[in-house]
Amino acid sequence: MADKPEIGIGLVGAGFMGRCHANAFRAVSGLFDLPRRPVARLLADATPETAAASAAALGFARATGDWRTLVTDAEVDVVAVTAPNALHEPVVLAAIAGGKAVYCEKPLSTTAASARTMMQAAEAAGVPTLVGFNFLRNPMIRLARDIVAAGEIGRITGFRGRHAENYMADPDAPHSFRTDPAGGGAAADIGSHIVSLARHLVGPILRTSAACTTIHRTRPVHPGSAERAPVEVDDMTHALVTFEDGAAGSIEANWAATGRTMDLSFEITGTRGAVAFSQERMNELLLWSARPGRQGYTRIEAGPDHPPYGAFCPAPGHHLGFNDLKVIEVADLIRGIAGQGVLYPDFREALAVQETVEAMQRSSASGGWEDVLPP
Amino acid sequence: MADKPEIGIGLVGAGFMGRCHANAFRAVSGLFDLPRRPVARLLADATPETAAASAAALGFARATGDWRTLVTDAEVDVVAVTAPNALHEPVVLAAIAGGKAVYCEKPLSTTAASARTMMQAAEAAGVPTLVGFNFLRNPMIRLARDIVAAGEIGRITGFRGRHAENYMADPDAPHSFRTDPAGGGAAADIGSHIVSLARHLVGPILRTSAACTTIHRTRPVHPGSAERAPVEVDDMTHALVTFEDGAAGSIEANWAATGRTMDLSFEITGTRGAVAFSQERMNELLLWSARPGRQGYTRIEAGPDHPPYGAFCPAPGHHLGFNDLKVIEVADLIRGIAGQGVLYPDFREALAVQETVEAMQRSSASGGWEDVLPP
Amino acid sequence: MADKPEIGIGLVGAGFMGRCHANAFRAVSGLFDLPRRPVARLLADATPETAAASAAALGFARATGDWRTLVTDAEVDVVAVTAPNALHEPVVLAAIAGGKAVYCEKPLSTTAASARTMMQAAEAAGVPTLVGFNFLRNPMIRLARDIVAAGEIGRITGFRGRHAENYMADPDAPHSFRTDPAGGGAAADIGSHIVSLARHLVGPILRTSAACTTIHRTRPVHPGSAERAPVEVDDMTHALVTFEDGAAGSIEANWAATGRTMDLSFEITGTRGAVAFSQERMNELLLWSARPGRQGYTRIEAGPDHPPYGAFCPAPGHHLGFNDLKVIEVADLIRGIAGQGVLYPDFREALAVQETVEAMQRSSASGGWEDVLPP
Amino acid sequence: MADKPEIGIGLVGAGFMGRCHANAFRAVSGLFDLPRRPVARLLADATPETAAASAAALGFARATGDWRTLVTDAEVDVVAVTAPNALHEPVVLAAIAGGKAVYCEKPLSTTAASARTMMQAAEAAGVPTLVGFNFLRNPMIRLARDIVAAGEIGRITGFRGRHAENYMADPDAPHSFRTDPAGGGAAADIGSHIVSLARHLVGPILRTSAACTTIHRTRPVHPGSAERAPVEVDDMTHALVTFEDGAAGSIEANWAATGRTMDLSFEITGTRGAVAFSQERMNELLLWSARPGRQGYTRIEAGPDHPPYGAFCPAPGHHLGFNDLKVIEVADLIRGIAGQGVLYPDFREALAVQETVEAMQRSSASGGWEDVLPP
Ligand SMILES: NC(=O)C1=CN([C@@H]2O[C@H](COP(=O)(O)OP(=O)(O)OC[C@H]3O[C@@H](n4cnc5c(N)ncnc54)[C@H](O)[C@@H]3O)[C@@H](O)[C@H]2O)C=CC1
Ligand SMILES: NC(=O)C1=CN([C@@H]2O[C@H](COP(=O)(O)OP(=O)(O)OC[C@H]3O[C@@H](n4cnc5c(N)ncnc54)[C@H](O)[C@@H]3O)[C@@H](O)[C@H]2O)C=CC1
Ligand SMILES: NC(=O)C1=CN([C@@H]2O[C@H](COP(=O)(O)OP(=O)(O)OC[C@H]3O[C@@H](n4cnc5c(N)ncnc54)[C@H](O)[C@@H]3O)[C@@H](O)[C@H]2O)C=CC1
Ligand SMILES: NC(=O)C1=CN([C@@H]2O[C@H](COP(=O)(O)OP(=O)(O)OC[C@H]3O[C@@H](n4cnc5c(N)ncnc54)[C@H](O)[C@@H]3O)[C@@H](O)[C@H]2O)C=CC1
Repeated sequence: MADKPEIGIGLVGAGFMGRCHANAFRAVSGLFDLPRRPVARLLADATPETAAASAAALGFARATGDWRTLVTDAEVDVVAVTAPNALHEPVVLAAIAGGKAVYCEKPLSTTAASARTMMQAAEAAGVPTLVGFNFLRNPMIRLARDIVAAGEIGRITGFRGRHAENYMADPDAPHSFRTDPAGGGAAADIGSHIVSLARHLVGPILRTSAACTTIHRTRPVHPGSAERAPVEVDDMTHALVTFEDGAAGSIEANWAATGRTMDLSFEITGTRGAVAFSQERMNELLLWSARPGRQGYTRIEAGPDHPPYGAFCPAPGHHLGFNDLKVIEVADLIRGIAGQGVLYPDFREALAVQETVEAMQRSSASGGWEDVLPP
Repeated sequence: MADKPEIGIGLVGAGFMGRCHANAFRAVSGLFDLPRRPVARLLADATPETAAASAAALGFARATGDWRTLVTDAEVDVVAVTAPNALHEPVVLAAIAGGKAVYCEKPLSTTAASARTMMQAAEAAGVPTLVGFNFLRNPMIRLARDIVAAGEIGRITGFRGRHAENYMADPDAPHSFRTDPAGGGAAADIGSHIVSLARHLVGPILRTSAACTTIHRTRPVHPGSAERAPVEVDDMTHALVTFEDGAAGSIEANWAATGRTMDLSFEITGTRGAVAFSQERMNELLLWSARPGRQGYTRIEAGPDHPPYGAFCPAPGHHLGFNDLKVIEVADLIRGIAGQGVLYPDFREALAVQETVEAMQRSSASGGWEDVLPP
Repeated sequence: MADKPEIGIGLVGAGFMGRCHANAFRAVSGLFDLPRRPVARLLADATPETAAASAAALGFARATGDWRTLVTDAEVDVVAVTAPNALHEPVVLAAIAGGKAVYCEKPLSTTAASARTMMQAAEAAGVPTLVGFNFLRNPMIRLARDIVAAGEIGRITGFRGRHAENYMADPDAPHSFRTDPAGGGAAADIGSHIVSLARHLVGPILRTSAACTTIHRTRPVHPGSAERAPVEVDDMTHALVTFEDGAAGSIEANWAATGRTMDLSFEITGTRGAVAFSQERMNELLLWSARPGRQGYTRIEAGPDHPPYGAFCPAPGHHLGFNDLKVIEVADLIRGIAGQGVLYPDFREALAVQETVEAMQRSSASGGWEDVLPP
Repeated sequence: MADKPEIGIGLVGAGFMGRCHANAFRAVSGLFDLPRRPVARLLADATPETAAASAAALGFARATGDWRTLVTDAEVDVVAVTAPNALHEPVVLAAIAGGKAVYCEKPLSTTAASARTMMQAAEAAGVPTLVGFNFLRNPMIRLARDIVAAGEIGRITGFRGRHAENYMADPDAPHSFRTDPAGGGAAADIGSHIVSLARHLVGPILRTSAACTTIHRTRPVHPGSAERAPVEVDDMTHALVTFEDGAAGSIEANWAATGRTMDLSFEITGTRGAVAFSQERMNELLLWSARPGRQGYTRIEAGPDHPPYGAFCPAPGHHLGFNDLKVIEVADLIRGIAGQGVLYPDFREALAVQETVEAMQRSSASGGWEDVLPP
């Protein structure tokens, strides 16, 4: 670990995801044998005070209240962006300008136009990029992809996917960056996860017909505030989708789904079998395969047969948790930056996700089917 | 049982559902205390020979190869129609003309126009009608309806429903009445079940945007035949739906769903809770309710608390099976004909289901949202 | 159906199980193609009044308040005994003396001595016997047995079984025949079900070490009574068991198992696989089999591949219920009496079950391992 | 993090658990706000070479091939023992002699006599001790304990517990320290986990009757070796147990349980409710509570309501993994050493677990019930 070349990490944002990134950078070197050792060098948060406190808590060497200084800091090789969505574009563009590798939380941006700007800037500058669709890192998703790609369940005919949580189910859940009319909403926020999964497993989505619904028409302007402001984004989107390879199906994004905490789930139907999954049981993949008199869904449990599970534990039965997915993502990031393997999903892929979400939003407005624009 | 006035049953069709009806008529009097005792009097099937064999096997007193004689038979009070879909209209209209009560399998007909003709004839003649949406009879569905109707889960915001089976998943599954272009297809066949459930639990569907997909473009003309003919109906339909009360959601009908045998399932989301169900575990209802630190889905198991479970067994833990649902339906039929309680779903309700299915089909053709026509 | 030779049924007892038997005799001819057609001829209950009412409700031609007249009635060919346990011996011995086939509810008797008397009388008289261990009739249990017997999961090493319900969990659940010191108790009552299953699937149990526990030391003498009497039987028994073939394991019988309604469940471990089941999901069998990277429990759902499911329904996905198990049992009864197939479990097998239960009770008293006496 | 006083960690053994400890020490400071910051100072393994390689991989500053130098190293404050069981006693006694806090993997030792020696030495020296029963750290287990302790499910009547894995199911799985006659075997190895859970949740076990079974009578002497040696320890133990508070039940330990990867599971039955759990779904606790018509098991999912889940993630739905349990354990260790809170399970508790296991082994030899000796 100590003998590996270092790679300097600069983190912008120290909230929910900032802590998760910090943990991953700290943990990854002891679990994976990587070409570089990430070192937590500089942390930027909204103010110097919160930045300093978070740097101390999360083990970063230095702190700043101004992310602009971070993106040009000489000790920083990778800028990890875990700030609110609206900040992604300015931070990312500045980091690209600074020649840094950019590791940005999902969604890359809140509009396709903005995401396209970032993608083009990154490709022009030739900097490595990665977007934090961490659920793709699950060994069970890798297994699902292998099964589908190998034709093990035949030709794919149907996809039924969903990302449903309940964190906005309460009508008194307040406004936040997530409800910002500039590009928030359930489809853009968590819809991006299930869209990225659908693309990862079944391929590009060509067309969609969707309905975006605002369940709670006003929300408190701040936590606990009596003042309420209208909500202009969707709480719930249902979409019909058609895939490039001919499969058809539906996708739901719902952050007001009472009773659901992380139903990022899908059922993929093929002509010879099917696979099903929910993040609520993230260590299990259901695989249906035909065997006369023994037909049924087999519940496959994550284990050393399913890389990179073995990096965490040599024995089956010892499940992974959510934070471990971020560790896998960071391992892939560092390998990719060092030239080992392809960085995926990069900004171009994240733009394709965003275009899919926007086609859903356009369809909801137009009342008809909309094509997904190419990234 | 023996002292009850008799009610004469005439059965048209002695296949899968014919046997199921016969079993229900035979069993019902010993399980329910009914105002009439059904007596199996006359059975019609495609030929005199198959009719005679089935009558003997199923305990019917007489047999005929011509349903026209059945619908006017003096000993027949109720005509139960379990013949293929295309026969529903002629048999039903003749039975109405004969002044019989009519108990018809779902779907009432293969087009809304035909269903409307039947509904109007029945209402004009004033004969009692019932349509065999047997899944509505499940005590767990009754419980779900009570929960929703009582506001126990708050205002309904979302519905996610599906009827998925795999009996047409095999590209070599042959044509049958189910693939008849005159009105078959997955949406019309099993889609009618989930639409009837959606209406039963959440209310009328006003608008829909749908995509009907034919997965296997040709099928053998007969079982085992080498000759193949094009398929003109859908194997799979995905639909967005909007309910009268403001809820939105999606519905899928899929008879090529590899791995699914009876996923007639739904999740109904309310502002304060949720209920979820799949017919693959028909004795269970999942109810989510909030209780700090104890939140979660409760798996409620069918038992004597959930009428009419108690008619089958006085103790919990002794589950109902599919055939028991038909027995409950027949008990409701006999009570309804005797003037005890309302017959539901009657022809008007079945027409409303059919109109909903047709709006899906129209939407798939038009590419836009379509209103559901009132019944 | 009508053309089959009749076989006259006499039913003793018209409670929970009496109704269940009556339903099965009524339903069976329409579902199975049997050599004889059972006809409900005579019903005996505790009083002439209750007998008459039950006969009318359940479709029996005649009624009596005295079972002694039933067991010699010329029209009765089979005596079905669904009276309380303490009545089994006198009714059964009289029925044997009357030359009748005897179909007795489980447990055959409340002591091995009594069961042995009945077994010997039946074998001496050469009358057909069957005992109502209906759970053995489940197509999923038949599948489990086939899997084990074929060596599909290798040599059996472990058995973990249980029958847990909660009907006596309430300390105010009153005394009944089930708590009769002469032979009631959880081990004898529901323990007999899991012992019969264990024997059916894994073979004879040779030795046991057990602990019988009385959880509620007094109970009301009658429903609702303020007067309480001591309980002298077990509410819960845990037992270690050793099988003839070398497997070892544990068995629990528990009628005070808060939260369980019908956890008649087992996991059978073999050197190459395992099967698991619970009657709470009676249409599912879990089968574990090794396949690199795809290992896991497959949830096999009951369907036409699993006889005699097809007698109830030609399509998968239409589950069986508890009452259907009794129908299968009655079909086997009628075939066995007509000389088609072996009657199982007969009185000798039921005695073997009882001897196993008594060895558990002896062990609990002695504090050491006890051999199970041969039947 | 950086401003906290340091606490020096010395790790003995760098296999499966050694890596897991190293990860936990590295991660803990960024997740928990602790009074001390653990620093990875010295790692001992079997040889200087493997020690050096592991120290580099796991981020330890120095390495040694001789644990004797580690236990007296001035920079080491805590000795973490993750070496094979037979080494626990010498390493632990030397560490105590060196005045170190001792953090030892389970089982503390392979015999009660040895564990007692270690417990007495530690208590005499007054050094802090903790034993690695990490499964106790699960927020869901903490919730289960709170529920039981608060009387929420009434008086406890029954316990049904198990630790079943399949890593020795293969007859060709070789000998290792786990099969060492000096104290290995399934009961001692994984049985200690379920015994510690039983004690944690329900209290001390007073008596037991058990059967220890050796399923595979010989095993290869080394991985891949053709030479086989007899196995003198159990592969599977079934035990009846009686608790101090009157509850009774059964416990199974089984490392040849084909199909099970981590069935560390229990069902605790009370007079008013029940809780059930399996480590195979470690983020779920099932709680049964009575509510008329709504009775059933509620599946409670781990979330911020269940400390210390919030240390890992502020939102529900983001599950914990196995390695996170070790992080919680290490947080408790560091707080305990700093005088915040009680260290549990300490050596005395681990001895009590060991005495319970040994009573099972004695019972299996004697054929009768055995008292558990007090720690
Ligand atoms: N991959 C995943 O599963 C998840 C991704 N996310 C994404 O992560 C991003 C952050 O979300 P959360 O961590 O939940 O939000 P959060 O509100 O918990 O944290 C945001 C952080 O950014 C900081 N911040 C605000 N303004 C700043 C500025 N001008 N300069 C530097 N820092 C500033 C805040 O002080 C705070 O520490 C979002 O893009 C979100 O969509 C969030 C949750 C899960
Ligand atoms: N409620 C439910 O869950 C289900 C409803 N159904 C419905 O039941 C109806 C029948 O379907 P299945 O029983 O599956 O079909 P099936 O093909 O098994 O049986 C149809 C029967 O009708 C008979 N038949 C054909 N022509 C006839 C004629 N001219 N006169 C009299 N009988 C004639 C056939 O000989 C056969 O016995 C359909 O409307 C279907 O949609 C079917 C399965 C399940
Ligand atoms: N196979 C299974 O799954 C089950 C089997 N059983 C067994 O069935 C038997 C009956 O139990 P339940 O039906 O639950 O009891 P129950 O109390 O519901 O019914 C007993 C019936 O016997 C009648 N009876 C009492 N004295 C009589 C007499 N002298 N002559 C004629 N009838 C008399 C009663 O009036 C009552 O109708 C028992 O042996 C029990 O163990 C009970 C439940 C389930
Ligand atoms: N808490 C839990 O869930 C688990 C606990 N364990 C326990 O952890 C302990 C270790 O087990 P594993 O890590 O599975 O074994 P392992 O065989 O994977 O690792 C043992 C390590 O000890 C080293 N070692 C051997 N002799 C040594 C010596 N003389 N000096 C220093 N190091 C030496 C080996 O080189 C190896 O690195 C055991 O007590 C076991 O029971 C194991 C697995 C899970």
